[in-house]
Amino acid sequence: MLSFECDYIMGAHPKILENLIKTNMETMSGYGNDPYTASAKEKIRAACQNDEVDVRFLVGGTQTNKIVIDSMLAKYEGVIAATTGHINVHESGAIEASGHKVLALPAREGKLDAAEVEKYLENFWADGTCEHMVLPGMVYISHPTEYGTLYSHAELKALKAVCERYEIPLFIDGARLGYGLMSKRTDVTLCDLTHLCDVFYIGGTKVGAFCGEAVVFTHNNAPKHFFTTVKQNGALLAKGRLLGVQFDTLFTDGLYFEISKNAIDMAEKLRQMFISRGYSLFIDSPTNQQFIIIEDSRLEEIKKQVRYDYWERYDDTRSVVRFATSWATTDEDLKKLAEII
Amino acid sequence: MLSFECDYIMGAHPKILENLIKTNMETMSGYGNDPYTASAKEKIRAACQNDEVDVRFLVGGTQTNKIVIDSMLAKYEGVIAATTGHINVHESGAIEASGHKVLALPAREGKLDAAEVEKYLENFWADGTCEHMVLPGMVYISHPTEYGTLYSHAELKALKAVCERYEIPLFIDGARLGYGLMSKRTDVTLCDLTHLCDVFYIGGTKVGAFCGEAVVFTHNNAPKHFFTTVKQNGALLAKGRLLGVQFDTLFTDGLYFEISKNAIDMAEKLRQMFISRGYSLFIDSPTNQQFIIIEDSRLEEIKKQVRYDYWERYDDTRSVVRFATSWATTDEDLKKLAEII
Amino acid sequence: MLSFECDYIMGAHPKILENLIKTNMETMSGYGNDPYTASAKEKIRAACQNDEVDVRFLVGGTQTNKIVIDSMLAKYEGVIAATTGHINVHESGAIEASGHKVLALPAREGKLDAAEVEKYLENFWADGTCEHMVLPGMVYISHPTEYGTLYSHAELKALKAVCERYEIPLFIDGARLGYGLMSKRTDVTLCDLTHLCDVFYIGGTKVGAFCGEAVVFTHNNAPKHFFTTVKQNGALLAKGRLLGVQFDTLFTDGLYFEISKNAIDMAEKLRQMFISRGYSLFIDSPTNQQFIIIEDSRLEEIKKQVRYDYWERYDDTRSVVRFATSWATTDEDLKKLAEII
Amino acid sequence: MLSFECDYIMGAHPKILENLIKTNMETMSGYGNDPYTASAKEKIRAACQNDEVDVRFLVGGTQTNKIVIDSMLAKYEGVIAATTGHINVHESGAIEASGHKVLALPAREGKLDAAEVEKYLENFWADGTCEHMVLPGMVYISHPTEYGTLYSHAELKALKAVCERYEIPLFIDGARLGYGLMSKRTDVTLCDLTHLCDVFYIGGTKVGAFCGEAVVFTHNNAPKHFFTTVKQNGALLAKGRLLGVQFDTLFTDGLYFEISKNAIDMAEKLRQMFISRGYSLFIDSPTNQQFIIIEDSRLEEIKKQVRYDYWERYDDTRSVVRFATSWATTDEDLKKLAEII
Repeated sequence: MLSFECDYIMGAHPKILENLIKTNMETMSGYGNDPYTASAKEKIRAACQNDEVDVRFLVGGTQTNKIVIDSMLAKYEGVIAATTGHINVHESGAIEASGHKVLALPAREGKLDAAEVEKYLENFWADGTCEHMVLPGMVYISHPTEYGTLYSHAELKALKAVCERYEIPLFIDGARLGYGLMSKRTDVTLCDLTHLCDVFYIGGTKVGAFCGEAVVFTHNNAPKHFFTTVKQNGALLAKGRLLGVQFDTLFTDGLYFEISKNAIDMAEKLRQMFISRGYSLFIDSPTNQQFIIIEDSRLEEIKKQVRYDYWERYDDTRSVVRFATSWATTDEDLKKLAEII
Repeated sequence: MLSFECDYIMGAHPKILENLIKTNMETMSGYGNDPYTASAKEKIRAACQNDEVDVRFLVGGTQTNKIVIDSMLAKYEGVIAATTGHINVHESGAIEASGHKVLALPAREGKLDAAEVEKYLENFWADGTCEHMVLPGMVYISHPTEYGTLYSHAELKALKAVCERYEIPLFIDGARLGYGLMSKRTDVTLCDLTHLCDVFYIGGTKVGAFCGEAVVFTHNNAPKHFFTTVKQNGALLAKGRLLGVQFDTLFTDGLYFEISKNAIDMAEKLRQMFISRGYSLFIDSPTNQQFIIIEDSRLEEIKKQVRYDYWERYDDTRSVVRFATSWATTDEDLKKLAEII
Repeated sequence: MLSFECDYIMGAHPKILENLIKTNMETMSGYGNDPYTASAKEKIRAACQNDEVDVRFLVGGTQTNKIVIDSMLAKYEGVIAATTGHINVHESGAIEASGHKVLALPAREGKLDAAEVEKYLENFWADGTCEHMVLPGMVYISHPTEYGTLYSHAELKALKAVCERYEIPLFIDGARLGYGLMSKRTDVTLCDLTHLCDVFYIGGTKVGAFCGEAVVFTHNNAPKHFFTTVKQNGALLAKGRLLGVQFDTLFTDGLYFEISKNAIDMAEKLRQMFISRGYSLFIDSPTNQQFIIIEDSRLEEIKKQVRYDYWERYDDTRSVVRFATSWATTDEDLKKLAEII
Repeated sequence: MLSFECDYIMGAHPKILENLIKTNMETMSGYGNDPYTASAKEKIRAACQNDEVDVRFLVGGTQTNKIVIDSMLAKYEGVIAATTGHINVHESGAIEASGHKVLALPAREGKLDAAEVEKYLENFWADGTCEHMVLPGMVYISHPTEYGTLYSHAELKALKAVCERYEIPLFIDGARLGYGLMSKRTDVTLCDLTHLCDVFYIGGTKVGAFCGEAVVFTHNNAPKHFFTTVKQNGALLAKGRLLGVQFDTLFTDGLYFEISKNAIDMAEKLRQMFISRGYSLFIDSPTNQQFIIIEDSRLEEIKKQVRYDYWERYDDTRSVVRFATSWATTDEDLKKLAEII
């Protein structure tokens, strides 16, 4: 069945499969001590154009958020995030399970506003009872956000400046980073990110890999004994090569960027397709997630022929529905969708 | 380089790769809600010949131990294990990180003795201060153990009886289960296990998969909301199909047992090879891990041509070294090893 | 210096000291296995007029909230509370440190609205992604609230009904319970509480004791091995008698109610005193905490002669300030205050 | 009934009660911001004769062990302790509940041996798999130990040297510190301790207070935001004065030492009393806990007239029993005991 349900409905990019086969019978040490992991790290460092970055591989998004946040916070610290942030909504309390409060601030189309974050921090430290509260120890944002939106270079710079003023790290959840970097409406490059935050990750799961996220500590600031922390969290793959080979492939000949661009191109067409047919957008997303307002009666029909993600009720008769393109979406898929809507 | 370092030095069994390719472009829902995961569960249930089993997939061994133990213990309970048990030694404190003490009892060639466990439990509850201690809430064993040894059917039955008397579950870490089931010196079948413990897992990572462990709750006793627990632990794969396809393959036409048997056959030959050359065994292992006592000077030479796992010092001039075979070990490999030793 | 800063500015009620002296040289077993603890439990049960209550003593409020909530929630559950709830603001993340998210709903003068709680629960379970979220496992309210307000009998009944519909416990933080029970504007009795919630506590620290909170599980529903849980949390007093003697005293001849009434009487006078002098109330509190709106310039003067608790800015020139009376407040204190304001 | 069950069978030293009464109606700020807490800290600093010490008050022993250890360890670190150490046996897993493994080494009459600790640390870091294990991050000892024994100055120095070599702190549980300092067979002073470890505590609960332990960070090394950590652990007393007044009293005119000395004098007499009557000692304890070997038949008689602590079975017909003296034991008590045994 045709599906725009999310960006992880298919397997892995064929080149990844090809390389998994090619390297399959080579004997390698475990836990990431293999040549493909080393090579993948090197290629990501090169793509970042920043010698100070330190790259580590983890398996999935929630796992990465949990481990990065917990390893960078003191036990009495919490993490500032938008109310709509993934860690605040859809991670089953993974952050709290590791002992940290998510300090939720209002989301503006999925984004945090630097001025609001600053106001929060200022008020916090001015409060005479602040030592009885959870100390804000980090700022978490997602880029693209859960609403497909992006921070501009200026917005990230402003957030980073606030974080520096209060001496806390800025962490960017890049589960869909490729789609953000290749958006036609962004002024932020991969290299920029290494200067605009303290740690971010390059999502693999949602951008062509079976699984895997590449965590980038931007200034040789990986937490001490991070390997042991990963193991303690049950996140260390014995066959680390599975992550190594995948990211080595994604960062060879710009594959990661190329397939991300495909999702953007397809999303652009999808978006125009809906607009030209008179549908309204719920949010003006410049990335691969498009949020469309659809009459419920219409939706009943559409549901029979294509999978999408139901987002939320818009009003009494209309709903917001998400259509996601990916590295694997084809013109063929769009043609079919056009006939349905 | 020739390697008997461990049983996860290669990729995945070729049939797994084949099926990953074959299913790669099918669109499927995430988080395990795909047909291959359903099929894999069904096949494992069939292999278990027990309708009450409930199968769940996780990514790796430490992760599985951590999640199963934490989800089955009350917060004030600990888990009994052999001092040499994986959870007590090589999991970076994953169990303690989830709040539970590992109550270590002496290991007999890697195994727990039912009588000693019973004595411990009896003394514990007879102690007037027991409410000031960690309550024993589960027994954990590995089968095969970290020393390659196996429990007999009678030994498992005795352990299970003790657990039932004290109303605590018995959990079997089966990271290398296939190698145990196919040992020539076992009287325990997969079906037996579903009656001899409350939960066990069928290791994939060390038996031909890229990753993956199939947890089997033996009497419809999966903890409530286990899915959410998995997510909270950062252990839920968005592309659950990666585990589904792998286990579906391993449990089609008995592949799991067939490749496990190969490791056993090869281990048997390897063992004879060492014995016939005058080496002594450190332990009489009936599975794929063989522990050989080797003169240090001899080892210096061997090290140059083959990878093994250094285990421990035996005496002033000799060491214990582990050679592991796997689903992928060939007669060719053994021939090369024969020339080296 | 004259102080209305809070309700724990003095030591303990003289009768408590008297009884500590009287019993001081008696030898008793530790950990609450002493006759005074037993007697205190019995007297509280009698005061509750409910044979099913199970009473336990803890040392302080945050500790009690942390232990009660953690011992009654599954690891994947969170607790619903008002955004202004003590556990959500002023407990340094104690709840999150034990692994649970505080699910904050809007506060109405410090209170949760039953209809809003119901709506939240209904929406939660209707959401297709709810298994990826934190499951709501309890409702927490404080009575009196942090704003001095009280739930009516009907409001509590409505909340309890919602909780029963969703099969989750209702927990009442009664750090200031005495002041709520003796309010002239309440229709809720101690006995009522044993029917209107699953667990509550009778605050000692803020009502005449040096320390201590009496947790009341209302229907023999104390969590299994609660003693061990208390110990594990570092909350078990070796000399449990310290809590036993204090609560035994407070629940002899209605002392707890009598001294609570004093605070209410004094608060009533204080409130009238401010109103009659033209001050406005920020909130219409029926208990011992009174929130007054005061001109900043006026406050500068007042500050020199009396201690109060600065609450928040009201507008550009006025602040909200809290004056708390207690079991120990005297007419003399009020007379002095009258001269100051 | 006559009791030598433990050293916390009575209330508080009369002078403590006197001062609680004297200060009872003074209004003070909460949470330790009161003049008596400040004074107590100052007096303890003076008694330590070391300007770099930083003193904090907590309520009980398990709580103190839990908070000190958790606040000084990284999340991936564990704490080395003797198998008989309080944290390894009788704290209901409080340390593990905060995420840390207790790395138990053999106890020599309750004590850790510096050479064995060093060997452990040396082997640990030499092990190629150490990053898969729990990193040793602290050494915990109790002084006096759970067996009443004491470390000599040389032994502490040796332990400290090992800790320094491996850059981990040495923590001394001083729940019964007074009885150690006043032993006739010690060469360790309070001042010495400030140079021989990184943190220790001066037990109040077992030495004359109702409750309370004074934690001494020896070189201005209190963990950052320790106040918030205490609050998060539910260990912050609203009426901090309760601890302040008690320790202020104990450290006025050497009361703490004087009453500790009484326990030692009484223990010495008790010990001689048993020896002279032909009883054997289980261990040669130089402090207030005396371990006597008694015939079971004899014990049956004794049990009817005096309370003691049953320790363990010695052989088929004899048991080990603990008699503890305290600040409150009198010659009268001993006379009664003499008649019984």
